[in-house]
Amino acid sequence: MAEESSGNTNKVEVVFSPALFPVYFDNDDCTVVVIDVFRATSAICAAFESGIKSLITVASLEEAKKYQQQGYIVGAERNSEIVEGFDFGNSPLTFKDGKYKDKTIVLTTTNGTKAIEMAKSANKVVVGAFTNFNALCNFIEKEDKDVLLLCAGWKDRFNLEDTLFAGAVAERISKNLRFTRLSDSSIASISMYKKAKKDLYKFLGESSHRKRLSRLNMEEDIIYCLTFDKTNIVPVLKENVFVNNNTF
Amino acid sequence: MAEESSGNTNKVEVVFSPALFPVYFDNDDCTVVVIDVFRATSAICAAFESGIKSLITVASLEEAKKYQQQGYIVGAERNSEIVEGFDFGNSPLTFKDGKYKDKTIVLTTTNGTKAIEMAKSANKVVVGAFTNFNALCNFIEKEDKDVLLLCAGWKDRFNLEDTLFAGAVAERISKNLRFTRLSDSSIASISMYKKAKKDLYKFLGESSHRKRLSRLNMEEDIIYCLTFDKTNIVPVLKENVFVNNNTF
Repeated sequence: MAEESSGNTNKVEVVFSPALFPVYFDNDDCTVVVIDVFRATSAICAAFESGIKSLITVASLEEAKKYQQQGYIVGAERNSEIVEGFDFGNSPLTFKDGKYKDKTIVLTTTNGTKAIEMAKSANKVVVGAFTNFNALCNFIEKEDKDVLLLCAGWKDRFNLEDTLFAGAVAERISKNLRFTRLSDSSIASISMYKKAKKDLYKFLGESSHRKRLSRLNMEEDIIYCLTFDKTNIVPVLKENVFVNNNTF
Repeated sequence: MAEESSGNTNKVEVVFSPALFPVYFDNDDCTVVVIDVFRATSAICAAFESGIKSLITVASLEEAKKYQQQGYIVGAERNSEIVEGFDFGNSPLTFKDGKYKDKTIVLTTTNGTKAIEMAKSANKVVVGAFTNFNALCNFIEKEDKDVLLLCAGWKDRFNLEDTLFAGAVAERISKNLRFTRLSDSSIASISMYKKAKKDLYKFLGESSHRKRLSRLNMEEDIIYCLTFDKTNIVPVLKENVFVNNNTF
């Protein structure tokens, strides 16, 4: 905000819903981190760790079908389940056997890919999850720009798991003197993360999405998505396609 | 959410920004509590405690001027300061001498009155602040409906002080078995309030709005707005005008 004294440091803001992105997005020369812990961004990180070449995200099932007709491997998830007729959904475990190595794959999900669409007006868009935490924080520090941590939420509503991850990132990068300009949403997210970090799984016990996934027998996914640093890759958007930041 | 098992209890949801109200507002038979701790809703409570008859809120300065031309007493605040030419701004201390007793007054503020405008589609709209905390919680429990705790925020951004108050209300009413269906935003607000409640003033030390008010020498206002139960009145909207719930 113009009235805040900025010095020369970067802003760190957490955006709790894609619906709030236009409110916070006032400078396109920033790093936007899209966060959908359960499970789109965890799955995207897992896909790159398994060796895919690149990933195209689309917002609608119609677009997803068009890619399928062109011969692409296409994943589609709605309301936590695989959409019939597609190759996979948004489970990160899909990628554990490396079967899509060197391929370009396409993905559409309930919340994550919508958030990515919104973020595309920024100069730098990356994907974050607990599974690439350290690599992501290093990337943000190297970019040295204002940061928007964009939580995908659930159908534009606030959710806990994305907020906890945003808090983890905000806490970590704010130890760097270049990232000390914290918004109220960052302060709140850090406070919550500090309370939760001893046992993220337990803290999320009452959250709507963990309960939703538990009902669908996705405990293994939940545990995977709450594990730090399974990969050192940061998927970065280049000309509308996500690529591995370590390969360019 | 339809997919959550609801039993027969009421939902408690915290809406972190007026821009998110349409996302959460799915049932007009609910109680909407508008929260703008610094300072609109604290001021409205103070005005009723001082004996005003009723209060009309308007979103724009143009509307406020029209009321002024009709002879009303009109307050207007923008960016934490009184707008030139109006009788007062949004300081609750305006009302301490009771000079507007039995009057109908008009108010427009940066954030609070905008949130009230959004909320008007609900059947029951009330105003909440630390200063009417217990009366408000009793009112909500008596209504026995779904509750939306609508934070006015700062220009559609999340803010800490409104969230802490929403957390205080959610914590209190969720002890009542009729109000146990907590959204993620309620869980987060309660968690934050529990951490902050020992010293709200200190917890808000780094918040953007407390810093903004401190720069404007409004410490006395801040302390007033963080004081519990200065009044037992709940201002309730009746035909677009706020009235004292104890007088009808």
